[in-house]
Amino acid sequence: MPRPSGREPGQLRELTVQRPFPSAAAGSVLIAAGDTVLLCTASVTEGVPPWRVNREDPARSKGWVTAEYAMHPGSTPGRKSRGTDGRATEIQRLIGRSLRAAVDFAALGNRTITVDCDVMQADGGTRTLAITGGFIALADAVASLGLDRAGLNGRGNGRPGGQVLTRSIAAVSVGVTSEGCVLDLDYAEDSRAAVDLNVVMTGGTTTPEGDTPGDYIEVQGTAEREPFPRPVLDELLDLAAAGCAGLTALQRELLGERFPG
Amino acid sequence: MPRPSGREPGQLRELTVQRPFPSAAAGSVLIAAGDTVLLCTASVTEGVPPWRVNREDPARSKGWVTAEYAMHPGSTPGRKSRGTDGRATEIQRLIGRSLRAAVDFAALGNRTITVDCDVMQADGGTRTLAITGGFIALADAVASLGLDRAGLNGRGNGRPGGQVLTRSIAAVSVGVTSEGCVLDLDYAEDSRAAVDLNVVMTGGTTTPEGDTPGDYIEVQGTAEREPFPRPVLDELLDLAAAGCAGLTALQRELLGERFPG
Amino acid sequence: MPRPSGREPGQLRELTVQRPFPSAAAGSVLIAAGDTVLLCTASVTEGVPPWRVNREDPARSKGWVTAEYAMHPGSTPGRKSRGTDGRATEIQRLIGRSLRAAVDFAALGNRTITVDCDVMQADGGTRTLAITGGFIALADAVASLGLDRAGLNGRGNGRPGGQVLTRSIAAVSVGVTSEGCVLDLDYAEDSRAAVDLNVVMTGGTTTPEGDTPGDYIEVQGTAEREPFPRPVLDELLDLAAAGCAGLTALQRELLGERFPG
Amino acid sequence: MPRPSGREPGQLRELTVQRPFPSAAAGSVLIAAGDTVLLCTASVTEGVPPWRVNREDPARSKGWVTAEYAMHPGSTPGRKSRGTDGRATEIQRLIGRSLRAAVDFAALGNRTITVDCDVMQADGGTRTLAITGGFIALADAVASLGLDRAGLNGRGNGRPGGQVLTRSIAAVSVGVTSEGCVLDLDYAEDSRAAVDLNVVMTGGTTTPEGDTPGDYIEVQGTAEREPFPRPVLDELLDLAAAGCAGLTALQRELLGERFPG
Amino acid sequence: MPRPSGREPGQLRELTVQRPFPSAAAGSVLIAAGDTVLLCTASVTEGVPPWRVNREDPARSKGWVTAEYAMHPGSTPGRKSRGTDGRATEIQRLIGRSLRAAVDFAALGNRTITVDCDVMQADGGTRTLAITGGFIALADAVASLGLDRAGLNGRGNGRPGGQVLTRSIAAVSVGVTSEGCVLDLDYAEDSRAAVDLNVVMTGGTTTPEGDTPGDYIEVQGTAEREPFPRPVLDELLDLAAAGCAGLTALQRELLGERFPG
Amino acid sequence: MPRPSGREPGQLRELTVQRPFPSAAAGSVLIAAGDTVLLCTASVTEGVPPWRVNREDPARSKGWVTAEYAMHPGSTPGRKSRGTDGRATEIQRLIGRSLRAAVDFAALGNRTITVDCDVMQADGGTRTLAITGGFIALADAVASLGLDRAGLNGRGNGRPGGQVLTRSIAAVSVGVTSEGCVLDLDYAEDSRAAVDLNVVMTGGTTTPEGDTPGDYIEVQGTAEREPFPRPVLDELLDLAAAGCAGLTALQRELLGERFPG
Repeated sequence: MPRPSGREPGQLRELTVQRPFPSAAAGSVLIAAGDTVLLCTASVTEGVPPWRVNREDPARSKGWVTAEYAMHPGSTPGRKSRGTDGRATEIQRLIGRSLRAAVDFAALGNRTITVDCDVMQADGGTRTLAITGGFIALADAVASLGLDRAGLNGRGNGRPGGQVLTRSIAAVSVGVTSEGCVLDLDYAEDSRAAVDLNVVMTGGTTTPEGDTPGDYIEVQGTAEREPFPRPVLDELLDLAAAGCAGLTALQRELLGERFPG
Repeated sequence: MPRPSGREPGQLRELTVQRPFPSAAAGSVLIAAGDTVLLCTASVTEGVPPWRVNREDPARSKGWVTAEYAMHPGSTPGRKSRGTDGRATEIQRLIGRSLRAAVDFAALGNRTITVDCDVMQADGGTRTLAITGGFIALADAVASLGLDRAGLNGRGNGRPGGQVLTRSIAAVSVGVTSEGCVLDLDYAEDSRAAVDLNVVMTGGTTTPEGDTPGDYIEVQGTAEREPFPRPVLDELLDLAAAGCAGLTALQRELLGERFPG
Repeated sequence: MPRPSGREPGQLRELTVQRPFPSAAAGSVLIAAGDTVLLCTASVTEGVPPWRVNREDPARSKGWVTAEYAMHPGSTPGRKSRGTDGRATEIQRLIGRSLRAAVDFAALGNRTITVDCDVMQADGGTRTLAITGGFIALADAVASLGLDRAGLNGRGNGRPGGQVLTRSIAAVSVGVTSEGCVLDLDYAEDSRAAVDLNVVMTGGTTTPEGDTPGDYIEVQGTAEREPFPRPVLDELLDLAAAGCAGLTALQRELLGERFPG
Repeated sequence: MPRPSGREPGQLRELTVQRPFPSAAAGSVLIAAGDTVLLCTASVTEGVPPWRVNREDPARSKGWVTAEYAMHPGSTPGRKSRGTDGRATEIQRLIGRSLRAAVDFAALGNRTITVDCDVMQADGGTRTLAITGGFIALADAVASLGLDRAGLNGRGNGRPGGQVLTRSIAAVSVGVTSEGCVLDLDYAEDSRAAVDLNVVMTGGTTTPEGDTPGDYIEVQGTAEREPFPRPVLDELLDLAAAGCAGLTALQRELLGERFPG
Repeated sequence: MPRPSGREPGQLRELTVQRPFPSAAAGSVLIAAGDTVLLCTASVTEGVPPWRVNREDPARSKGWVTAEYAMHPGSTPGRKSRGTDGRATEIQRLIGRSLRAAVDFAALGNRTITVDCDVMQADGGTRTLAITGGFIALADAVASLGLDRAGLNGRGNGRPGGQVLTRSIAAVSVGVTSEGCVLDLDYAEDSRAAVDLNVVMTGGTTTPEGDTPGDYIEVQGTAEREPFPRPVLDELLDLAAAGCAGLTALQRELLGERFPG
Repeated sequence: MPRPSGREPGQLRELTVQRPFPSAAAGSVLIAAGDTVLLCTASVTEGVPPWRVNREDPARSKGWVTAEYAMHPGSTPGRKSRGTDGRATEIQRLIGRSLRAAVDFAALGNRTITVDCDVMQADGGTRTLAITGGFIALADAVASLGLDRAGLNGRGNGRPGGQVLTRSIAAVSVGVTSEGCVLDLDYAEDSRAAVDLNVVMTGGTTTPEGDTPGDYIEVQGTAEREPFPRPVLDELLDLAAAGCAGLTALQRELLGERFPG
């Protein structure tokens, strides 16, 4: 039985990126996976949150990365009211944790990068697309700092020779629908899925011999309708690894030299 | 002495429009005037606010149009925190009042249209561009209702034969800078202007013989640095009328048959 | 056709002032225009808001003037709930901007004057009466500082010889009713006016030969029911100038030596 | 040793009342005890809070009386920020409970009377003066309803022949200062008192033979600096009874026929 | 006519204490009076609130004690929503004031002790039991500081030789029910009482010759249904003194050497 | 290398339960796993949230289960401020989702059960212990409804013969520390773990031949320090299954006949 979109079980939605998008932020990406569209911007501000300040020498505080997730009122039929609810809180914590796993904060130095993920059109999978697109905006913001790999930029609070991004991060959703285990669910699938699993992974290696999956940053699975046994979890994890590898390949192509590693 | 942008005193910034922009809203416009970029969406919801309900027959309540104005965190250098402050409150009240002047609420029927104006990149004149762009989104949302002029759409709560939009609305800022009275200030001008005047007007008539200015919906002038005498106010009002006429011409071209009148 | 109050089109409501009103504030004025009654107090506090502090020498920060506008619960039939809504935010921003236009902040020095405008009884025109009365309270608060014109008061952070108030400020509403263009609308007129225009002006000169109108600080006009053409705006501006001149004459009489200029 | 004000230990401050004060409320009183000045207004609204509604017949709900207490920003040196804090919450609960003790809610019928007590100038004893003055405003609001004693006013939800006010209420503070037990403390005394006791009483009877004290509605005593023994409490209660009797005499004189009993 | 519980008019409910209760707080007591059960914890934090800081030498700031009162959602039938309302605000202010009367803040030094009183099961008299139990938790928290009486603990900011607790504090409710004046009302009595009086007292002396009552810290009486005359107040105060003496005896037994005096 | 607690890698902390705990809630459990102690109460209220109401017949609305998670101020050293933050929001959403997986809402009928999980003492693993203990409280609350299996309780809105609980739910944390993969981390382990995985499972079957693990309800893993590869995830999942089986055995023993299945 085919998926509503006609995609294969392991097929990602078509991805398109507008970069930069008009913005004053250092990184800005309008990223679309099918009909799910997000604007991810990454803004740099000097200094870090109070709890993060190095008491002995504030200028040598380690940096910080945080995220905010918001749904634009026009992103859903019926107009979504502005303001943060429990779901948004949970999602922006996930995005922040995930992106922080890619950052060497000593190399970043006494700065905060805030990644704002605004859903412009919602058709399922917004939290994982926010991570995948947010990483691109983050990489552009890091590049704007001019902290080159040789540490020659003369800024005292970046570690000499340091590389701020230590790895790449991508995320995708997988789930169990009436068609079985499928990758990158759209809303029509997501709203009726029995199991919903979001997986955040580091970029594996892509060689002519094939993709090597990355490691896990976050695994968040929920039995929406029915408890699921271990074999289903195993199959979902396999699908997710392949999906993240595909998203990583896109990030690598878009970022070029800015891609870490 | 030339303007920073090299424009003539009475010259508008270049305008570009992406329409529709990916959204679930009935109308969605990404509108740019130079480096000021806004997303204006217009969402339709059934029913009206409680104070607007017709107590005798709720289904026959007159409609309502309201607006929200928000600056995206990435719209300004230094990242703008989310949330509504006094300035945003004042601006969104202006936008709502202005757009309501174009609407026949009996013809709209028991519906609310919310026009969300999100500043993606701020370079002066965001509130007036929100009105100009918001009107386009509003017109698209009205068109989506299928309330045709002959009243044949079979929906009982639109006035038979009614036309929801009774006129067009456009807005522009004028001000006094060291170059004298100028039209459509960008941030470099606005931040040092002695006088700042925002004018909202109805569309006048454009014929081969010339433009006839519209009438006033809102006039909001502020002496930012120095009180200004009546002759300066007169000169600014002339500039604004010409500017609104130019913006109206653009709206007319974009909206085609949807343009009221 | 006569106005509901029997006044001439260009006639102000009767003005009465109780000054001081019992208060701990440095300036306090109970001002009435017909049945609209406001308490305007001006309180002086040391220091300025954080964003206003002179980083190099906080004690030499320039001063600040701000305003708050509130409707007492008993000011309207039906009891008005306490708390600031969008309308109050918009109004208090207008009052603050208007009064700041009268102040030399270097001469004021490192102090904040807050002008609280509380509507005790509302019968139209509260925002403009708040400005007219607030200016009187402000002048009394400035006088309480003892910063005389010769700079002999020994306080280091007032500019020697400086004069804190550089001009007077008054405000009035005008509008279009079924009686045509009228000055100083009461609620019965205001609630049915087609156009409502609030004008804030500096004090002009009053000589035996006649009144010379001041310049504009704020012009805020709204088409409540119908767009209005330029000739109507011109007529309203003429009426407002005459009204502000009358209010300025009252301020001059009440303040005596404290009146600036 | 004399009191700072030169008053005798059992002497009230001088009381003055302006009634009505300009307001749209049904009752409005500007009451002063020395330099403590409050505006008490009583507003009538139809209906009662949701928890008070008679489920079987809402129109026959018993009435309600509530109070709000606020300090005007200009009431204290240094400007008091607006907004309700813990102290204000505690005080307005006391005022509401006290005034409710005077009301027959079945006779009041399906209405809410809100007594707003705004401190215009604070010099000690604001909560007790709010009760004493609030009662006068409440009585005027009740009188405005036209619910006469014979029940002939034709309103169905007032009890036939009912009398809404069943007794009068007055309040005063007493305390222990370095001068011993004293009545009606001003701020100079209150801020250094060892014990502070607020007493709310019903009106006793005043005859040529002398005053008979009323009964207690509220007794709130606090050892501000030192625990106090029973004999001190007894002496304070005696002083308070005399003070309340004096305040009741004033209420009786002011209210005339509106005084209950 | 007997009380619903069968107790004598002057009989306290049975008291039980679990101490410590599992907690990270320095003092923690689960205290029950009949079916009213509270958890009182006392947490020590370094430093004092901003307004309490000694500007000249912050390390020598005097200490502070504050309280919070909350009802657990399961404490009442029907589930109580979390969050502080007016009643809780009033109660926690009473608890804080009462406990502070027992403390020598110079001896406490630059520390804040917060006493959290959480009602686990509510059956009347929660505020007074919070004070009685909170005192025990407070005493345990003070003991944990190791500020012994000889001042030998080597901490610079405790007064040498000082004793932080200067007296003990206990509280009880009394009231007038259809059975007359009674001590320590449970909910069945409290909800129908005509008068409700909460009394906070210092510990008196208990000798073989009898109990000597303490002094008053707080007296808060409310006529819930009917004003009450002086003789009733006197009888209630007598009952309360006996009750507080009984509670003090329990505190003395539990605290042993930690009991002040 | 041994664990700080001396436990084996796959060994749970010692579990103790006090049931019921003094409360007005239908279910109340004080559950401890080592030094982590939580109070879980389950309160039943009639009706369901507005979005859950059956529009056609409110009385036949399906039931609802929700959860709140709060840390008592005394649960951590340094006192935890009250109020819900992002972490608590995320956790209580997890608890609610997990417990709902055990409920047949048609059988529950038009009722809401709220499970309040209050951390009294925090030593790691609070969210999973909240689920394990919350299930016990939920089962007691369900039992209090008297909806027996034969549907003979005469309440119309429980499904005849229905069983409200369809399965049991338990949860445990696993993680990677310097000792490798370990079960049921305490704070000393959790705060330094490289990977933290919370697993919620249904109860498997326990027979003399051995435990059969249940299925997954939630799997939430986070790389706190280092990304983790698939084999580590597999090992952690094995440990978690054994842990959940042990917790299920405890639930079965405690609940007896109330244990579902």
